[in-house]
This record gives sequence, structure tokens and C-alpha cells, in this order.
Amino acid sequence: MDKFRRNERMSAMMKILSDNPNKIFTLSYFCEMFGAAKSTMSEDIDILRDMVKSFGLGELETVTGAAGGVRYRSVISRKEALTYITELCEKLSGSARVLPGGFLYYSDILSDPEIVKKMGQIIAGEYYHTEPDFVLTMETKGIPVALMTANALGVPLVIARHSSKVYEGPAVNINYVSGTSKSIETMSLSRRAVKEGQKALIVDDFLKGGGTAQAMVDLMREFSVEVVGVAFTMATEEPVKKCVTGEKSLMTMHLDHETNVATIRPADWLKA
Amino acid sequence: MDKFRRNERMSAMMKILSDNPNKIFTLSYFCEMFGAAKSTMSEDIDILRDMVKSFGLGELETVTGAAGGVRYRSVISRKEALTYITELCEKLSGSARVLPGGFLYYSDILSDPEIVKKMGQIIAGEYYHTEPDFVLTMETKGIPVALMTANALGVPLVIARHSSKVYEGPAVNINYVSGTSKSIETMSLSRRAVKEGQKALIVDDFLKGGGTAQAMVDLMREFSVEVVGVAFTMATEEPVKKCVTGEKSLMTMHLDHETNVATIRPADWLKA
Repeated sequence: MDKFRRNERMSAMMKILSDNPNKIFTLSYFCEMFGAAKSTMSEDIDILRDMVKSFGLGELETVTGAAGGVRYRSVISRKEALTYITELCEKLSGSARVLPGGFLYYSDILSDPEIVKKMGQIIAGEYYHTEPDFVLTMETKGIPVALMTANALGVPLVIARHSSKVYEGPAVNINYVSGTSKSIETMSLSRRAVKEGQKALIVDDFLKGGGTAQAMVDLMREFSVEVVGVAFTMATEEPVKKCVTGEKSLMTMHLDHETNVATIRPADWLKA
Repeated sequence: MDKFRRNERMSAMMKILSDNPNKIFTLSYFCEMFGAAKSTMSEDIDILRDMVKSFGLGELETVTGAAGGVRYRSVISRKEALTYITELCEKLSGSARVLPGGFLYYSDILSDPEIVKKMGQIIAGEYYHTEPDFVLTMETKGIPVALMTANALGVPLVIARHSSKVYEGPAVNINYVSGTSKSIETMSLSRRAVKEGQKALIVDDFLKGGGTAQAMVDLMREFSVEVVGVAFTMATEEPVKKCVTGEKSLMTMHLDHETNVATIRPADWLKA
């Protein structure tokens, strides 16, 4: 007789898989944990896969082969993502959040765990197939969403700094022209942070000209790291032409400079 | 007849509760979702509570009263926390991570989603009873662990900056003497970020003299916010006397300046 009931096994398994997104667990791992036969566990997983799907709670996949097993991904359907981002856009639009100089205040949104978790899941969903080894961001405002993207992908986060710090050890520094301020800025990354030949997904909060994003791409080249994608929480409508190419943003901002009203819309690719 | 089986209801409920830590869900919410009777859902929750407990997967609590319902907290037992932190200490100890000037390189640890999630859960577990309204950190290295602590507590994260930024709007700035460099530093927080009368939990990466931590406490006083706790991932053994009081750190660092070997130990309170 099995030591645990199916409902206990399934809910424990759901919790463990969901806490470790994109990580492959072998069938044996769960057999041992629950003292159950492989056939029993296979059945549990089949039911769990259907449940996850029918409740829109992500994706449970069986991976075959030598390193095979079962893997959970917090994938959000395009429809649900669009609904979520549309609601967020409504919250951000208007004049209440427009600051002097035409800047949008949304630091509160960018450090709300629930919101950045969802944004991170949406971004991760677009890049699972590129199999990045880490997520790269530039301090400071993009860190929470980049961390949650890394979490969903099951990879580490790497944070580039504005200047080299004593506690980061030897670092590679590059200078670049910021698209926003047109001033010369420095970007620094610890030599220990990444390894040659790895793949990076760049995630940051805001895209205007793209100077910072392009600098991150250049920085990765210095480390012989391939950039598999560039994603932002928000991009400005102007300038239309950005320094960086192939980028994906969740939201697009248009600012009316006469009325100081911001119109934030979900990005077009979310509607496809 | 019920629309879903118990194992489906329980695993879906586990996923939803675990994705929204410290948030109270009413019984009616789940009754409606699953088209099940209250008595059925109560039974589901009872079994789930026992499962969560026996597998050491946190705590499921039934909250009575008008705003009652069921709530999940990712509480980690003291024993498991001590084991986890001890392993982390072993990873960090030695000479490989000691940089010139006696600094410890552990930025990789501080931005690993899996590790900061666990550290955040351990810290949150110590402060649930203080019911903070938000977690406060100072940029940059403490952001990931502070975000995960905020996530476990189900509250927002607020990030203080080194200087006021145009996109943060009107801000309160304070100057303080950094314990590490003995230089005058500035700390800035947007006026929109917090509200008078709220309660803050301060979470940061590293405690040496405590100058920055004390500045965060002072900053909260400017906002008429009560500080309910101060937590760090690591504290140095020297100086024994810190500027800040009542703080909790997960690890303690001793650095032998002659051999450049770092000895990192779990904090004493974890052994209690």
C-alpha cells in the first residue's frame, strides 16, 4: 500500500515543482520521497499536468531522455498576459504619475513582488526556448523584474553596476553615451560574474534611446557571451528608432508634452 | 457531484496559496472556483494543512473572524534554516572569495534567485508577527533578498537610493556617515514611496559599522514610519558594537587579516 494518498502526493509535488521552475526532477526523486511505484507517480503526474492546464496555472512537461523527468514552467497564456498588462497600463496612464520633465513615476510598480513576479513570468515565457544561462540587468530599477525573470527561468541574475566596487573584485568597465541624458556613463561588471561562452538574456525596466541596452550588449561581447534577447517592462514611443534591435517590451508609453498626460498601452506583440 | 476531484482541488489550491504567501483567501473564493460545498473545501484544507506540515513545506493557517479564510506562509523550521545557512557559510568560507582590502565577494550568492528566496523566507519567518506594511532596503546588493522577503510577507518593497532621481519625484534626502568608508553619504527616498503611520522592516545585505542601517532608521523617522525590525544576510564580527540595535543577521563573518581567510558562521539566534 502507498504511504501517502494521491491528493497528498499531488499537492506536495505541485508545491515542489512550482517552487523550482524550469528545473527537471526525475521520477525516481518523487518515488523515493513518497515511497511510491513509478507507475503510480506517472499517473499522478498525468493528472497534475491536466489540472495545471485546465486551471491556467502554467505548464507541466515530461522531458524524455537520459536527463529526463518532469518540469514545471510558470507559462502564462498570451490572452492572460494581455489582460494583466492592459490593467497595469490603465493604472499607469493619466497625469497623476507624470513628474516634472516628463518622467513617469512607477518605481512602486517595479518593486511590487506580485507585479514583478507576473511580469517576470511573461518575459520568461518568451525566452525559454533560447535557454539563457543567466539574466543580466543594470542597477537599479530593473533588478526586481530581472530577478523574477531569472527565477522563472531557473537561472542566476547578474547585475551590472554604474562603477566598479571594491567588493566585486576585478571588473570589466565600458563607457557609453546614455540615450536619456546624452552624458557619458560607465557600466561595470565583475570578471567573476559570468563565463565565456554563456548565453545572456538582458532584462531592464525602461527603454528610451537604447544607449544603456546597447552598452549591455557591448559588455557581453567583452565577456564573449551571446545575447539571446533584450526585454523591458516599458518602452517610449519616441524615438521610434532605438539603438538596440530585436527588443521586446511589455508596455509602450506615449507622453503628450502639452497636457502632461501619459498614455500607456500593451505592446503589439502581446496582441498577436 | 463535485466538478473536480479532491486531488485536483488540493493541488490547484496549494499552487494558488503558495503563489500568494501571507494572503488570506476566503473559503467562498475556493468554493466558487471549484464549484464545491463549504464542507468539502474545509475537508480539503484540513488534509492540505497536515500535508504541508508533514512534508515541511511551510504553514497553512485558518484565520477566523470577519476577514477570515485560509493563508499560506512559507515558514522554514529553525532546524532547516540552520542547516541551509550552515551549508551556505561553508561555501563562502576560505580564502578564494576574499578580495584585496579584506572584502568578501558574494554578489553571486546575493543575486541567485533560489538562495535569496530561501534567505527571504527565513527572514520573513522572524517578522510575520510584527506585521510590516513594507520592506525597506538601500540599493543595490540587498535588493534581491529584500524583494524575496517582501514576497514572503506579501508586502511591497521600497528601495532607498544614493541620490534623488528625476523619475522618483520629490524626495526626502538625508546625509549620514558610512561606517565602512567614514565618508559622508546621501540616502534618498521618494515622498510617494511610503505613508505616515506605516510599519517598515529593514532588510539589507551587509552590516559592518551599521551607519547605513541607522540612516535607514533615521529616514523612516522623517516619514513617521515605525521600524519593526532590521535584518541582514551577513554581519562582521568586528566592530562588536554596531550603530544599530536589535538587528538580526543570518551569518557572521570573521576575517583573519594575516592569512586573508574568511570564517563565516551561522548567527547564534539560528541555533536557539
